[in-house]
Amino acid sequence: MQPYITLDTPVTDEVLNLIAHLPTKSLAAVVAPAFFKKLTNENFMRIGVLLAQKGYDEGGCPIGGVVIDNETRQIIGKGHNTLVQDNDPYNHGETSAIRDAGRQDFSRMTIFTTLSPCDICATLLYMRGFSRVIVGDVTSASGNEDLLRSKGVTVDILEDPMGIALYAKYRREKPDLDIEDWKGLAAVHKG
Amino acid sequence: MQPYITLDTPVTDEVLNLIAHLPTKSLAAVVAPAFFKKLTNENFMRIGVLLAQKGYDEGGCPIGGVVIDNETRQIIGKGHNTLVQDNDPYNHGETSAIRDAGRQDFSRMTIFTTLSPCDICATLLYMRGFSRVIVGDVTSASGNEDLLRSKGVTVDILEDPMGIALYAKYRREKPDLDIEDWKGLAAVHKG
Repeated sequence: MQPYITLDTPVTDEVLNLIAHLPTKSLAAVVAPAFFKKLTNENFMRIGVLLAQKGYDEGGCPIGGVVIDNETRQIIGKGHNTLVQDNDPYNHGETSAIRDAGRQDFSRMTIFTTLSPCDICATLLYMRGFSRVIVGDVTSASGNEDLLRSKGVTVDILEDPMGIALYAKYRREKPDLDIEDWKGLAAVHKG
Repeated sequence: MQPYITLDTPVTDEVLNLIAHLPTKSLAAVVAPAFFKKLTNENFMRIGVLLAQKGYDEGGCPIGGVVIDNETRQIIGKGHNTLVQDNDPYNHGETSAIRDAGRQDFSRMTIFTTLSPCDICATLLYMRGFSRVIVGDVTSASGNEDLLRSKGVTVDILEDPMGIALYAKYRREKPDLDIEDWKGLAAVHKG
């Protein structure tokens, strides 16, 4: 069967949202490799933001992550924070995308994260040997970019205004959830 | 119904193994709170080692974790590494026990880990505000105990010879898996 999304399919938020929602294992059956080849880094970051939106719509923390192969530009893993959805104290956007990818050699891969990585995720990224991290929001949070660079990881900032606006809205609505996601319930109770 | 395991049940490896295998949510239906109250730290560490043995028997990395409430001494979460079983690049013993615990205030809790925590787990433990970490093996690996102490976490070493022997055997049998679990497939390929 021919894939539904081909080289000629226009790149719109609607098709990127479809890709965000499709299980990663199903992408090869529905999307031509040539379509992914033409996507820009901005497009992959937008897929991350649309995953963040999915998380927000589920009542969770809006942070998404996308892992791509540097050579083929195909998506190897993607996901979003599931603190609320899975009652999980640590499944951040990056963690979720890495779990979805499975056991991979991440030195051949780039991860797009919609929010500047927390201390745990920054450690996870360099300990798993990622070659490159692209950060979609250093306005809402930042701090570990230099740590990653000191560990030999290439770090680029590529802010997505849709993602920044979404995170700002969520933080206004649920400030305690934002703190819990970052530093745990202990920090919320400490006040 | 009366719990099967009561205050008077003798503490043996067999009953600790039963507890390791029971789903955490089922413990309250089967084990009297008074039984947990009489368990020593050595007993809780042994439950972690028996979880590590479960992971080993499944073909995985033998590392276990147990989270208890400091006051009640009841088990809040437990688990073992599932790199192989779940094709998961980062579900270490500590991570697994924390996920099993769910959204908790870990400042009222202690985590027993059968192996000295890796950089990611050490960061996870202080970022989630654990009051105390008890380490069951600093012979096979070590290094982050001082980092944890510098973040205000109480760290105790309580080595379990059964766990140390199990880890040493596994590392002899599967040295590449040991490296992948610690630093990812990238480190295995780099050699």
